[in-house]
Amino acid sequence: MKIVNENILALEKHYRTNLVNSLTGFKSANLIGTISAEGKTNLAIFSSVIHVGANPLMMGFLMRPVSVERHTYTNIKETGYFTINHINKKIFKQAHQTSARYEKDISEFDACGLTPEYSETIKAPYVKESEIKIGLKFVEEQEIKANGTIFIVGEIVEIILPNDVVAKDGYVEIEKAGTIAISGLDNYHETKSIARLYYAKPSVDPKEI
Amino acid sequence: MKIVNENILALEKHYRTNLVNSLTGFKSANLIGTISAEGKTNLAIFSSVIHVGANPLMMGFLMRPVSVERHTYTNIKETGYFTINHINKKIFKQAHQTSARYEKDISEFDACGLTPEYSETIKAPYVKESEIKIGLKFVEEQEIKANGTIFIVGEIVEIILPNDVVAKDGYVEIEKAGTIAISGLDNYHETKSIARLYYAKPSVDPKEI
Repeated sequence: MKIVNENILALEKHYRTNLVNSLTGFKSANLIGTISAEGKTNLAIFSSVIHVGANPLMMGFLMRPVSVERHTYTNIKETGYFTINHINKKIFKQAHQTSARYEKDISEFDACGLTPEYSETIKAPYVKESEIKIGLKFVEEQEIKANGTIFIVGEIVEIILPNDVVAKDGYVEIEKAGTIAISGLDNYHETKSIARLYYAKPSVDPKEI
Repeated sequence: MKIVNENILALEKHYRTNLVNSLTGFKSANLIGTISAEGKTNLAIFSSVIHVGANPLMMGFLMRPVSVERHTYTNIKETGYFTINHINKKIFKQAHQTSARYEKDISEFDACGLTPEYSETIKAPYVKESEIKIGLKFVEEQEIKANGTIFIVGEIVEIILPNDVVAKDGYVEIEKAGTIAISGLDNYHETKSIARLYYAKPSVDPKEI
């Protein structure tokens, strides 16, 4: 089946949104924790977190246009900090619930049944129930001119994770930590590793680690 | 275990790269197909493809700095087109192999055993062995100043996918299409859906579809 641009745009809105959001393949499942200058916490689910660089240590995520108020954005700009918390199988329903449109004076931590947790270095709250947590300092934002979405970049200040999930070569066994994946807008998936492959070289066939 | 910025930067390079690339959670697994002005095809694996917008229809991906030659980048700028092709379980080894540093005159299609396929609309080659393929027109690029990586945005021109993977509400059953996920630099995962959840509303408990 082939569907062209004009015919996709002509589809009913929810159908189109479901379709287009499925096209990237599997997506990362994270909760982003922030706090306002007045100390009000906020928690929001994001499926757009990606790796930006290993030196300096950076991660980023895309957020929707700030033409309407985005608490995550406002809080990051006010305090300079945010946390990224992996969603695992035990908390995916609570995580999904953070996408409901709560008023600014309601914290998604309270409304969705998740627990804020603080470190000494990072102003923003972590999610206690998450196994892998990253604390970041805001670095820069780049606006996608075509639709006003904003790519936010942060520098990793600290990583909090269980001792037994880091392999000998530094790889983090996120599957063992219970981290899950998202597809489309609302499908949550557990995973099963097929194989790790050695660093690819032109003259060598791909080989399993 | 807590690891802070300075101690991560002090780690051996491969260990650090494995560690930091694991932190986003699961990543999308895609092959990006391009062609040069002279007609030489190129194929490269990317784990950074994300959804950008549903109106206009846009997807994007982050690529490493172009301080060294990046064939994908050069080809997109020369022709204005690229394709995104989901990696499935049958081709993950060939897909991984495209990350080897082949010379510009060698096409990864030939070197890795994948087949270029063309539509009438898109100049860039699709991957025949992929089940879900998206043809895009270059829209804009935004440089992340902190490390020179480039976020490339394209508008969806057409989608090619099997008839039987589109659910009634537009959601694409990418698990059924064999699409896999990546973690870290080199781990490939199949998935199993836990649940789809209804659109979240403040006063309603999360419910499975």
